[in-house]
Order: sequence, then C-alpha cells, then structure tokens
Amino acid sequence: MTLDVFLTPGEVATADLASRTAVVIDVLRATSTITQALDAGAKAIYPVSSIEDAMRLVNTIGREQMLLSGERKCVRIEGFDLGNSPLEFTPERVGGKTIVMSTTNGTHVMPLLSGASRVLVASLLNLSAVVEELARTGANPVLVCAGRERQFALEDAVCAGEIARRLMDARPAEWQMNDGARAALALARAYPTPESMLAASAAGQSLLSVGFGQDLAFCARIDRNDIVPVLHDRLITSLAPTAAS
Amino acid sequence: MTLDVFLTPGEVATADLASRTAVVIDVLRATSTITQALDAGAKAIYPVSSIEDAMRLVNTIGREQMLLSGERKCVRIEGFDLGNSPLEFTPERVGGKTIVMSTTNGTHVMPLLSGASRVLVASLLNLSAVVEELARTGANPVLVCAGRERQFALEDAVCAGEIARRLMDARPAEWQMNDGARAALALARAYPTPESMLAASAAGQSLLSVGFGQDLAFCARIDRNDIVPVLHDRLITSLAPTAAS
Repeated sequence: MTLDVFLTPGEVATADLASRTAVVIDVLRATSTITQALDAGAKAIYPVSSIEDAMRLVNTIGREQMLLSGERKCVRIEGFDLGNSPLEFTPERVGGKTIVMSTTNGTHVMPLLSGASRVLVASLLNLSAVVEELARTGANPVLVCAGRERQFALEDAVCAGEIARRLMDARPAEWQMNDGARAALALARAYPTPESMLAASAAGQSLLSVGFGQDLAFCARIDRNDIVPVLHDRLITSLAPTAAS
Repeated sequence: MTLDVFLTPGEVATADLASRTAVVIDVLRATSTITQALDAGAKAIYPVSSIEDAMRLVNTIGREQMLLSGERKCVRIEGFDLGNSPLEFTPERVGGKTIVMSTTNGTHVMPLLSGASRVLVASLLNLSAVVEELARTGANPVLVCAGRERQFALEDAVCAGEIARRLMDARPAEWQMNDGARAALALARAYPTPESMLAASAAGQSLLSVGFGQDLAFCARIDRNDIVPVLHDRLITSLAPTAAS
C-alpha cells in the first residue's frame, strides 16, 4: 500500500493521480467548513474558484434553494449570504440548502484533483471518519494540503500527518511513503495539541487578527462528526447517514 | 528580522524576493557537490538547466579550461566529464577549472531566484559558513529547498531547519518565521542524525539503489568546509579565502 502526502498544491501538478483516492485538506477553513455544513444538513456544496464562477452557477441553477458563501482575506465576500466561518453554518441557516462556496485556497486546489478516481474532503473535525473510509476501501491515498496562497500551511500538514498516523497504525509495515508523508508524520508528532498548533500557524494568526479566534477552537475539535464529504462531478455531498437522501 | 523557508520550489514563484538573500539547498546532491567542487579548488561553476544550455555555453566559452558535469536519474550524462557525485570533484580533477553543471533539481531552481538581492548555496557540508555569512550581513534570508522533481524532499527541509536553528540560536526572540520555517525547525529536531535521515529520504533511497551509498556518507558531513558559494550573474564562485582571487 502506498501513502503520499503533497505538502503544497504545486506538487500535485506533476503527480499521477490515476486510480488513487485524493484527500483534500484545508483546515483553516474551507474543508472544516464543508464538513460542518454537511453535518448541519446542507444537501450539497459546489466549490468554485472565483466569484464570477459562483455568480454564473447561481444564475444557471436559480437562487431560491442556494446560498452563496465565501471569503477573501478571511472576510465574507460582499453580497454573499455566508462567509467561511464554520460557526455560520448552522442547521437553521444551511439545512436542506445547496451552497456555492468560493474560498481562497481549499476550493482552488480541487480542480487539480480531477485525475483521481475519487476525492474526499478532510479536516480535523472528521479525521477518523475519513481514515475509516480510506481503510474500508483499501485506497492508496494521496493527501493534498491546500496550503495558503500556494505556499505551505502548517495546519494542513499536521492534519495530513494525523490521517497518515491513524491509517497506518493498523498495519504499519504494509505502507510505502513519500518524503511528504514522512514529514507530515513528524509534524503531527511535533504538534500534538491542535488548538495551540492552529494558533501558531500563519493562517491562525491571520484569523486571530481579524477576530475569528472562535473558529480556531472549533476547527481544532478532532472527530467532532462522522461526515465523509465526497467531491464528484463538481459537487460535494456526504457519505454519512446524516446526509443520506 | 524575518526568516522564510520554502519547502518546495513551486512556492518561490509567488514570493517577493526583493532585498532578500536567497539560500538554495539541494543536499542530494547539487549543492553538496558545488560546495565540494569549490573547496577542491574549482574556479567557478556555471549552473545550467539543460544539456543543450551546457553545450551552448561550452561552444561559446571554449572547451579547454572547462569541465562538463551533470546527471540524469543520478547517473553521469553521456559524454560529460563528471557526474554529480561530490566524490568525483577532487583537487586533481577540478583544481583551477570552470565547471558547467546540469543537474535535475538544484540547477533548475536557481533561475527562479533572480529577484533576490543575493543568492548563496548551502548544504550540510557548509552549514556554519553559510549561517555565519547570513548573520554577518544581517540578512532576512529566504531558504529555498530544491526538492525532487518539483516535490518536497526531506533532506533539503532538514538542512533548512538546521540553518534556521543555528541562525536564530543567537537571538531567537528577534525572528519572524513563516510556516515553512516552523516545519523545517521541527523536522531538524525530528531527524537529528544526518546520515540516517539521508538514507530514509527518497533521494537517498534512489542513490543507494544505483550504488552511490558513499555519497550519502559524504553529504552528511556537517561543516566539512567553510566555503560560501555565491551565485552572481549566472556564475557560482566562493567567498571563502581558499578560492579568493
């Protein structure tokens, strides 16, 4: 079995993802928010890269059952219904809705993964659920850190390392790893406390500076839910029973 | 003071290097070999990206005083004088010579650094010499890991972490770091023994598989020399007394 971690999105470009399960990770905050949105009862999420793509999608599908969400520099895009704070995605706000989401990093990396046989979405909130799904399907996963403005982000690497550690714990000798996976494992060991790790990261510092400290505490909650978001045909839906139709 | 580490070459593209000193790191093996070549008395090194560029340069400057070096998949390029093993770069072979060097990773990343005010070349062999030069000039350095085929390489990150640790040891409170620098520091702590770290890395495994195990032992020798190679106007020369003209 093979486990690869790409610590930055630029590494995906040259990788062969054929017959691999890709796992996209953007802990602060896109993939945490996606997990929370589905846990709160959202029907589906359309990740898009630009505000223009978001508007085009809304105009095509219709505004009634949809919510527009997204941020630039951590703050809600003007005219959008929601920002990118997971705390906004409550059952009251998003239950039964389809959400168009445009964020800076997480939704940018998803189009790069079209070569994978399957794309899952992971955060600290749904660590064990994603690990169980990877173990159940016997996947040779590629964990892809969304990073921050194309650069390395500590929190995504630590999350990838935690997934790697849990996945390999069951059968450690059977796995081959790339250097990124080795580094992610070492970083997960070096940063065992999620909330202080998030506060030390550049993305965490940015969020703290604009008043989103509560988001750090929320995004640090390992295994808060059992949602496994799956990206398929440009749409993210949940495998978990809570969102099954 | 600011210290940034780019763990992969793709991160450099979006970075502002103006008025920064860039330090390029390709422990296995380009920057180790460059350091060794200058220590062995080579006059200068022309890093080039392609075999075609190497041939063009030789045809322009003349073959007499020049040596052609470089590898593809760890092995010497056909028709070239030298490969990329530092053990080949002895005083007898390279003393007084100018070397045109084409390697897979290290020489590819150098053109990306043209925006920096200064470019130094680091490896484990010349760690302290590079750190002293950075401290002496009060630089806000950007450490750039060459990586492996555009992907993360463990050995370059650990070397960057060792440079960061030594540089900040003197005045730890004065430094601001990016997430890459935090990760590199953690990885240097996680892999305290250079030779076993090199053997665990993907590049090290590749070299072992084609019989270059001795290169790992050589490249692991921290502070073997006091050479500070500087890239200026497409040419790498040494700041150290041994190569001063």
